[in-house]
Amino acid sequence: MRFSVKRTELARCLSAIEGFTARKSPLTALTGVRIKADKEAKIISCAATDLEMGIEFKIPAEEIQENGAGVLPSNILGNIVKKLDSDVVAFNADSNNKVNITAGAFQMALPMQDEADFPEIVPAESKDVLDISCDLFRDMVKKTIHARSNDPIVRAVLTGELLEARNGYFNVVALDGYRIAWRWEKVEAEDFSMVVPGKTLVELVKLIAEEDEEAASIKIGLAKNGTQAVFKTDKFMVVTRTLAGQFIDYEKLITGVEPHVTVTVDTFGFFSSIERLYVIAKEASENNTVIFNIRSGSIEAHTEADIGSAYEKIECETKGKELEIAFNAKFLLEAVKTVGVEKTELVFGGELQPCLVKPLNAEGQINFILPVKIRKNQ
Amino acid sequence: MRFSVKRTELARCLSAIEGFTARKSPLTALTGVRIKADKEAKIISCAATDLEMGIEFKIPAEEIQENGAGVLPSNILGNIVKKLDSDVVAFNADSNNKVNITAGAFQMALPMQDEADFPEIVPAESKDVLDISCDLFRDMVKKTIHARSNDPIVRAVLTGELLEARNGYFNVVALDGYRIAWRWEKVEAEDFSMVVPGKTLVELVKLIAEEDEEAASIKIGLAKNGTQAVFKTDKFMVVTRTLAGQFIDYEKLITGVEPHVTVTVDTFGFFSSIERLYVIAKEASENNTVIFNIRSGSIEAHTEADIGSAYEKIECETKGKELEIAFNAKFLLEAVKTVGVEKTELVFGGELQPCLVKPLNAEGQINFILPVKIRKNQ
Repeated sequence: MRFSVKRTELARCLSAIEGFTARKSPLTALTGVRIKADKEAKIISCAATDLEMGIEFKIPAEEIQENGAGVLPSNILGNIVKKLDSDVVAFNADSNNKVNITAGAFQMALPMQDEADFPEIVPAESKDVLDISCDLFRDMVKKTIHARSNDPIVRAVLTGELLEARNGYFNVVALDGYRIAWRWEKVEAEDFSMVVPGKTLVELVKLIAEEDEEAASIKIGLAKNGTQAVFKTDKFMVVTRTLAGQFIDYEKLITGVEPHVTVTVDTFGFFSSIERLYVIAKEASENNTVIFNIRSGSIEAHTEADIGSAYEKIECETKGKELEIAFNAKFLLEAVKTVGVEKTELVFGGELQPCLVKPLNAEGQINFILPVKIRKNQ
Repeated sequence: MRFSVKRTELARCLSAIEGFTARKSPLTALTGVRIKADKEAKIISCAATDLEMGIEFKIPAEEIQENGAGVLPSNILGNIVKKLDSDVVAFNADSNNKVNITAGAFQMALPMQDEADFPEIVPAESKDVLDISCDLFRDMVKKTIHARSNDPIVRAVLTGELLEARNGYFNVVALDGYRIAWRWEKVEAEDFSMVVPGKTLVELVKLIAEEDEEAASIKIGLAKNGTQAVFKTDKFMVVTRTLAGQFIDYEKLITGVEPHVTVTVDTFGFFSSIERLYVIAKEASENNTVIFNIRSGSIEAHTEADIGSAYEKIECETKGKELEIAFNAKFLLEAVKTVGVEKTELVFGGELQPCLVKPLNAEGQINFILPVKIRKNQ
């Protein structure tokens, strides 16, 4: 293997695949990056995997003198490339399983593992199920992923997000048993359904954020046996296992909320108010409880902890009946943060009933939050 | 106690004293901030201490209706004030050891501890020993503090910095047994000497960085019995215990270096080269060893570890004899980082002799670094 690449391209590629590398593994190849030079395609492809998910990222070569492949220590290579100052970096594998890397006056020799030690990340036979703009896909994930569960023990499937097409809509849904975040868009696609690990989606969102072309699109594929998903752009291919298990009928839960009182708040103002109350609420209990007294034209919000108490009157428009109800302030904050427009609509279902959080007069996203019981000694 | 202050002033003050608060302590007053309203002076003073060091920070009051003092939970108060959106924050202590804090529509009640629980941070009788510009003092500390020891067990005194006036010069010196950093300036002052804990100096540098007036100066005082130092500006007073023990004769060590070869390098280029080699060197051993082969007109630098090896030829001007010698790359980086001008002069004392690092053609600062033994199996 002998080739040269632009330093900036290589640095970008190594930083993109960083999150896919296993940090520690008895299989040292998993902590490495597999580099492959393809003279005909004039492409250098870099791959990383932690066995749950994997990536192949392609960059144009400056020059390829000799084809070849091998696995290099990812961490060291990434750290060095960040610090190089030459325009071009040259790789030259010798016969002793070593790669000599030259960049200007700097030379480095790194041990190279056989590419045979590196697990293939080509997916099982799959078919494309959706082609969607990168920007839109990123937005859909970013506005829902906060609601996924972080507990892989109780119900592992909830640590992922449901990606499904149904009746001409693409739905991205996360839920953790206390709340649901749902983002939908009209698409032309046949029905499909898969649960993708949250970790993979977090890395995908980072990868897509680095796409420079606005028009870029991402192809989503699903293995025929349903156990693997594939995400492809012009630059990279990500393969991930899917999570087995059922999501509850989120749509039924959400559409089942009957408005007891509907409140319209200033998004930023409401967020700031809850943020202040949260400073106290998070000292109180696991539930970060904030109690709302909803009256005509205002929410009086308060919270109590050993360390002190806080109260704020939030001006708003209200339509419906009065209500006293409590919520986890953290869940409210994470939901309101995704709203993205000036006004937020809060639909309260009544005593011990859930609340819906959504942008006013906008379609395509909604949060569902279960209330917290008010302990009467508070 | 009843008063109001500008939110921005209060936020700045609380963030300034944060580092002086004890994080955890059986004495809860030490995790708090003592707030005191002085109607005559129209000043609110905030104080914090961890018993080793303490600060009193003064801000102008908007209005003081009633004098008083008490200790509030520092962490909660600081977090809330950062998130307030009103211009003014009002404090009102009630008779139940509680303070009601109001800011616009937000209200909070925090428990208040008696100010008697808070240790006085007025210093023992002291005299001012130096009055120096804040900017200069900060520069002197920042360019030396990297060389102090982080090991409080072996020789606690070396975790501090020596501040001394001698023969018309003010010297700031840190050393850890392997290296020395020395920064000096001409001053008019009587001789004095004290060792100030590194932790206090780190906080002082942060405080001074927030000074808005360029002309601001800091007064350094020393308690008559030598056990406390005092740092005063218009806004704050910091009191700290000093460290007992002797510094070695740093000046003799440094002036004792006889040039074997003197090398002039481009500061930024040399730093980048060592930074690249350090990526490999830090994988090798505790000593981060980089070996220099100094020839006429160049340094050939190399390093080796299990993970690989690296080499770089650094162009430079040399005057003197050839030399093979090894150094801890981290020490070199930290020394070169303080140089601050385009060219760096490295004076090598010869085999197994120290190296001096200093800005070319500039006075006032020098680093002294002991070499590392070259293991011949490398």
